[in-house]
Amino acid sequence: MSKKPVILITNDDGISAPGIKALIEVMQEIGTVVVVAPDSPQSAMGHAITINNTLYVNQISKENDKVLQYSCSGTPVDCVKMAVNEILHKKPDLCVSGINHGSNSSINVIYSGTMSAAVEAGIEGIPAIGFSLLDYSWNANFESCKKFVKTIAQQVLQNGLPSGTVLNVNIPNVDEKEIKGIKICRQAKAFWQEKFDKRTSPFGKDYYWLTGAFVNLDKGEDTDEWALAHNYVSVVPVQFDLTAYHAIQELNNWEF
Amino acid sequence: MSKKPVILITNDDGISAPGIKALIEVMQEIGTVVVVAPDSPQSAMGHAITINNTLYVNQISKENDKVLQYSCSGTPVDCVKMAVNEILHKKPDLCVSGINHGSNSSINVIYSGTMSAAVEAGIEGIPAIGFSLLDYSWNANFESCKKFVKTIAQQVLQNGLPSGTVLNVNIPNVDEKEIKGIKICRQAKAFWQEKFDKRTSPFGKDYYWLTGAFVNLDKGEDTDEWALAHNYVSVVPVQFDLTAYHAIQELNNWEF
Repeated sequence: MSKKPVILITNDDGISAPGIKALIEVMQEIGTVVVVAPDSPQSAMGHAITINNTLYVNQISKENDKVLQYSCSGTPVDCVKMAVNEILHKKPDLCVSGINHGSNSSINVIYSGTMSAAVEAGIEGIPAIGFSLLDYSWNANFESCKKFVKTIAQQVLQNGLPSGTVLNVNIPNVDEKEIKGIKICRQAKAFWQEKFDKRTSPFGKDYYWLTGAFVNLDKGEDTDEWALAHNYVSVVPVQFDLTAYHAIQELNNWEF
Repeated sequence: MSKKPVILITNDDGISAPGIKALIEVMQEIGTVVVVAPDSPQSAMGHAITINNTLYVNQISKENDKVLQYSCSGTPVDCVKMAVNEILHKKPDLCVSGINHGSNSSINVIYSGTMSAAVEAGIEGIPAIGFSLLDYSWNANFESCKKFVKTIAQQVLQNGLPSGTVLNVNIPNVDEKEIKGIKICRQAKAFWQEKFDKRTSPFGKDYYWLTGAFVNLDKGEDTDEWALAHNYVSVVPVQFDLTAYHAIQELNNWEF
């Protein structure tokens, strides 16, 4: 009998989010699960880590619970570091992050705490996947995700991942039977057109809410945005070597 | 007479840091400067943005000051968005971030608030550069940086940048005359070996400080780490399309 893989689960919506509960359910079917997730929502925290403040960890699970669960006061990236160094004391066989409430496709990957947790695991040499459902609501229905989440996690456990990459998986918010399949994609070239909503506090001070509209000018049919719009699960291999290799030669022509 | 370029300056050490003051001095020599920087230190904030909280902006400069200066309660990335949308009401000709107190070479690029501000500007189509000096101390000497900061900024204004890239510039902490030149590099493949320093609060609760050691196993002589160790200023072109294109074909062989 082969040993069950150890699977670390985290997210950025916080340990009490329905999305992480769905992910725990699926991962229990394929491995031994340990959860280390933020004690409060940490959406859009990107690759932030906590270096100017202290970190707290609390065990949430009880003695006989099947799944070890810890909450952490830090960011999603802190959770991964904490899990590996202070809870597991070793690298897990797989790290999965999510299931995020809302899309992390295209440029959203760079703002996403969910994806940054996966990237951090990747930096530490752990196969890692971030999962997101295209529904921002707290009461999103994660049922139709489960089959795809399980399949992709199993494939990663079986095949490993190409060196220096993690997976960014986004799932359309439709019934499972409407999903046409899984597509390997590139990140669509898109951006957020910000709009600051300016208000005045009860004390007379101006303040802002950051809002905005997602603008995708990329018409490619090999992008995650295209796949999602056509009811495919999108899988983008994401790298953390940010070097723009194609630009090196051009810059070498500059006169310094 | 050609019109002076508009240069947006931000950082992650906060608006009162000596590093940003040095950057303002240099940029005043080549353009019209507007500063929008965090009102408190935001190191290691990565590409975090503020979506679950309000944002405040305060004008710091007085009526007759040469340089418009604003502090913002948000992250470095928030500062860039705020500057473009609510202060400048247009894109500047250049965005420079720093000068950071401490290195942002190699994998540090991904944790760095300084670099994330530059990346955000890049996403918005603004030529952008992050500058860092390899000295973490508040009283670091930024004098020997200035010549290189000016040269590189002028080159970017003159040549533009390759599409979809920004520059990550790191400067050795040595006298100007010891610096051998400017080298275009790739990001060294390295990581942080974390160590959590566990302590107990006066109230009996355990807490942690995240510390660690930088581990560079990359022996390449074309990396930023090599350049810096040999007293070169390192310039890495950084991209925000995180797709690992080389991995797409391999993943397409998987059986979903």
